[in-house]
Amino acid sequence: MNVSTAPPLARLLEPIRDELARVEAEIMRMTSSRAAPLQALLDHVGKFAGKRLRPALTIVAGRMCGGVGPDHHTVGAIVELIHTATLVHDDILDESAMRRRVETVSHRVGNETAVLLGDYIFATCFKEAAALEDRFASRYLAEIVGVVCRGEILQVHHRHDVEMAEETYFRIIEDKTAALYAAALRCGAQLGGASAEQCDALASFGTKVGSAFQIVDDILDLTGEEDSVGKSLGTDLEKEKLTLPLLRLRERATPGDRERFAELVRSHDPENRREILGLLREYDAIESARTTARALVEAAHHELRAFPESAERNLLVQASGYVLARDR
Amino acid sequence: MNVSTAPPLARLLEPIRDELARVEAEIMRMTSSRAAPLQALLDHVGKFAGKRLRPALTIVAGRMCGGVGPDHHTVGAIVELIHTATLVHDDILDESAMRRRVETVSHRVGNETAVLLGDYIFATCFKEAAALEDRFASRYLAEIVGVVCRGEILQVHHRHDVEMAEETYFRIIEDKTAALYAAALRCGAQLGGASAEQCDALASFGTKVGSAFQIVDDILDLTGEEDSVGKSLGTDLEKEKLTLPLLRLRERATPGDRERFAELVRSHDPENRREILGLLREYDAIESARTTARALVEAAHHELRAFPESAERNLLVQASGYVLARDR
Repeated sequence: MNVSTAPPLARLLEPIRDELARVEAEIMRMTSSRAAPLQALLDHVGKFAGKRLRPALTIVAGRMCGGVGPDHHTVGAIVELIHTATLVHDDILDESAMRRRVETVSHRVGNETAVLLGDYIFATCFKEAAALEDRFASRYLAEIVGVVCRGEILQVHHRHDVEMAEETYFRIIEDKTAALYAAALRCGAQLGGASAEQCDALASFGTKVGSAFQIVDDILDLTGEEDSVGKSLGTDLEKEKLTLPLLRLRERATPGDRERFAELVRSHDPENRREILGLLREYDAIESARTTARALVEAAHHELRAFPESAERNLLVQASGYVLARDR
Repeated sequence: MNVSTAPPLARLLEPIRDELARVEAEIMRMTSSRAAPLQALLDHVGKFAGKRLRPALTIVAGRMCGGVGPDHHTVGAIVELIHTATLVHDDILDESAMRRRVETVSHRVGNETAVLLGDYIFATCFKEAAALEDRFASRYLAEIVGVVCRGEILQVHHRHDVEMAEETYFRIIEDKTAALYAAALRCGAQLGGASAEQCDALASFGTKVGSAFQIVDDILDLTGEEDSVGKSLGTDLEKEKLTLPLLRLRERATPGDRERFAELVRSHDPENRREILGLLREYDAIESARTTARALVEAAHHELRAFPESAERNLLVQASGYVLARDR
C-alpha cells in the first residue's frame, strides 16, 4: 500500500468506535479511587490518553476470531493501562518533562510518587485480569509485563555499548514494545475462541508491527520536532541508547567516521546532534532503518494470509500503514 | 509476656524450618532468568533476604487452619517477593544507600534499573499467583499490592504536613505495611480451608501486629544506630515524614516547643536531630508511641482467642513479642 496516503488512525478506527467507548468506560472504572490524592494522580495520567491502538487490536482480533464480548473491553482496558503504567515509569527513566503534550507524572509530582503510581496501576491491571472468568489473560499478561521489563533492563544494560549487536537491538524492541502489541492481539483472539494457529498468526503480526512501530519511534527521536511529536526528543542520544539508525550508521561508516561517531555519541553534548544527523544523512542510515520497518510491516501482512478478506483484516493492514506514516 | 526476654526469631521459627526451606526453593525458582544481566540483578536482590517473617505467617496460618500444602510454599514465596519488590522501589523513594547491610539496587545500578527490576519482580509474583489452582490468592494479592501503593502515595502526599492527623498516620501504616502481614496470614488460612471467621481473625491479627511493627520501625529510624539496624536511618526526619513519636511530641508540647518542633522538622538540618531527640525525651514521646505498639500487640493476641491452644498459636504470640523487642 502507499504509505504516504495512509488515512488518519481515528478514521480507521471509526468502525469500532462503539467498542472503544466501552473500553474507555472500563478504563474509567479501573482508575477510580476514593483516596483523593490518588484520584488526582489518576486523573492527571488520564490526560496522556493516546490513540488506544492496543485495545483496538484486541477488539479487531476478537471480531476476526468469533466475536467480541465484555471481556474484550476489560482486557483492552487492561492492556492500555499496562501501557500507561510503563509510560509513567519510563518517564522516570528518561527524566522527561513532557509526554503527549502533558507534563509527566515524574516531573509534576516527583519520582517517588511516579514509581508508586505506576505500581498502583500495574496492580490494578493484575487485579482486573485475575477477576476474569477466562484464566488465560491473567497468566499471560503477567508474563508479558515481565517480558517488557526484561527488554527495558537489557536496554539499560547495553547503554553506552557502542558495539551492541543489531540482534540485541531487535531482541530489546521485541520485548519492550512488540510483546504488548502481540499480547493485545493474542488476548482478543483467544477470548473470541480462536484456534492456536489463528492466535499465533495474530500475535506474530503484532510482534512485527510492534517492532516496526519502535523503529519509527527511534527514528523520530533522532529526526523529529518536539512540537509535532509532542514529547521530549533526543533522549536516546543523550542516554547513549544505540537505536537502529545509529547501528546502521556504525555498520556503514568508514573507520574514521565510525570513530568520530563513537566520540560524538559518548560526548553527551547536545550540540553534536547536528553532526550526528549529518552522518546519518551521509550514510542513508535513517532510510536504511525505515526500509527495515517497511519490510517488517510487509512480513506482518503475510501473517494475515490465512484469514479471509474482511473489513477487520483490512483495518489491521491499514493500521500498520499508519505505523510507518506517523510523524508522532 | 515479658518482651525483653523474647527469644530470637530464628529460634522461634525452628519448628517450621522445613516448610521455610520449601518456600526458599520457590523463591529461587521464581527469581531465575536466562537473561544474564537480569539474573545478576536478581542475585543481588537475593542478598537482601530478610527474616522471612511473612512466609512464616502463611505457613503458621495454614497449620492452624487445616494444614499446609505446596500452594502455601508458593504463596509464601510470592508474599515475600512482593515485599522484596516494594523494598527495591522504596530504596528509590528513600534514596538509601544501604539495606540490610547490602548496597541498595538503586545505589548500585541506578534508579532506572531499580524501577524496572521492581516491576519485573511484581510481574513474576502476579504470574505465579495466576498459575495457582485456587483463584483467591491471585485476585486478593493484586488488590493488596494496590493497597500498599495507596498507603505509600498517601504518605508522600502528607510529607511536610506538620499538622497531619494521627488517624491519617494509622491509615498509612495499615495500608503500606500491615496489609501485607494480614495478606500473608489470610492466604495461609484460606488455602488451608479455614472458615471466614478464622480468616478474618488471623488477618486482623496481622493488621495489628503489622501496624505495631511499623511503629517500632519508625521509632528505630529516630533513635536507632545504623550499625545495629543495618540500614540508612534518620530518613524520615530528612523527608519531613511525621511518624508516631513526632506526632505524640507535637500533641504534648507547649505552644512554644511545638513551634520550635515545626521549625526543626522543616529545617532539614541533620544537626537538629539531637535537639529533636531531646524534645522527644522531654515529652516521653518515644515511650508513648511504644505504648501504642504494645497495646496493638495485645489487641492482636485477643484476635487469637477463638483458636485452641497450640504450638502455632503460641508461635504467633511469641513472634509478635519479637516485633516489639527487636532493635533492627
